[in-house]
Amino acid sequence: MTGSDRTLRGFVGYGIKRAFSAIQSDVNATLAPFGLRMLTYSALAVIRDNPGLRQTQLAEILLIERPNLVLILDELEGADLVVRTRARDDRRAYELKVTLKGRRLCDRATEAVAAHDARMLEGMDESMRETLHQALRLIEMNGRSSDDRGKVSRP
Amino acid sequence: MTGSDRTLRGFVGYGIKRAFSAIQSDVNATLAPFGLRMLTYSALAVIRDNPGLRQTQLAEILLIERPNLVLILDELEGADLVVRTRARDDRRAYELKVTLKGRRLCDRATEAVAAHDARMLEGMDESMRETLHQALRLIEMNGRSSDDRGKVSRP
Repeated sequence: MTGSDRTLRGFVGYGIKRAFSAIQSDVNATLAPFGLRMLTYSALAVIRDNPGLRQTQLAEILLIERPNLVLILDELEGADLVVRTRARDDRRAYELKVTLKGRRLCDRATEAVAAHDARMLEGMDESMRETLHQALRLIEMNGRSSDDRGKVSRP
Repeated sequence: MTGSDRTLRGFVGYGIKRAFSAIQSDVNATLAPFGLRMLTYSALAVIRDNPGLRQTQLAEILLIERPNLVLILDELEGADLVVRTRARDDRRAYELKVTLKGRRLCDRATEAVAAHDARMLEGMDESMRETLHQALRLIEMNGRSSDDRGKVSRP
């Protein structure tokens, strides 16, 4: 007997989970030579796109909880890829910027991640990729409106 | 400044991650009333589909590492949903079965998960759902062949 996951295979959520597992191991293998992993690369790329970004904004964009964010930023700061400075207009807030080293590493890592992403999409034509993209955005939005309903019904 | 994730938005991997986060929180909220979470429900559903399944097979089907599997099975056994018995033909192996309570809970939870899954798919017509399903299977397979290449190049 080999065993089957037939009940779970009926759910799109299970398909998303398995696709995400595949992507996660491949992207982490892709990023290891740069001393990065999925979450540290994501944070680095967002900071590079938004010089002066606040920590709280980064956490919101990447949907990361505070303790996890602190670990990620410690890792990026320890590797001299990112600097944290106090905001001029709010001394309790921190602003984030990439260093020159951080920008260069981010750009090289982004090329490698683009190649990984292309590998994951192999066998799909343009129209299938576009539909996949739209479907994923819809799921994300459906999740958000489900959250909102939850907030209303569980005050 | 609100900040943007424009570099990451170009990657399908990022879309998958965000869709997975949305699904994960919604399915965990769905399963909480049953005393289950995504991983314990998945294990319960696979055991229910395959009476007598070995622990090692369950780990392979769900791509779970051994320490995590032990925690999940302890949780299911502690709640009297699953029983572990030694295999007759191999005293070192364990066979898994759902209890009557486990089967009933699994069936009710599966109905709730099906409703959650339908919520996540809202706004998609049949053809979009089918394309999404195919695209996710392709990503999973692309990840697997990427693993195999890795095994060859890193002996």
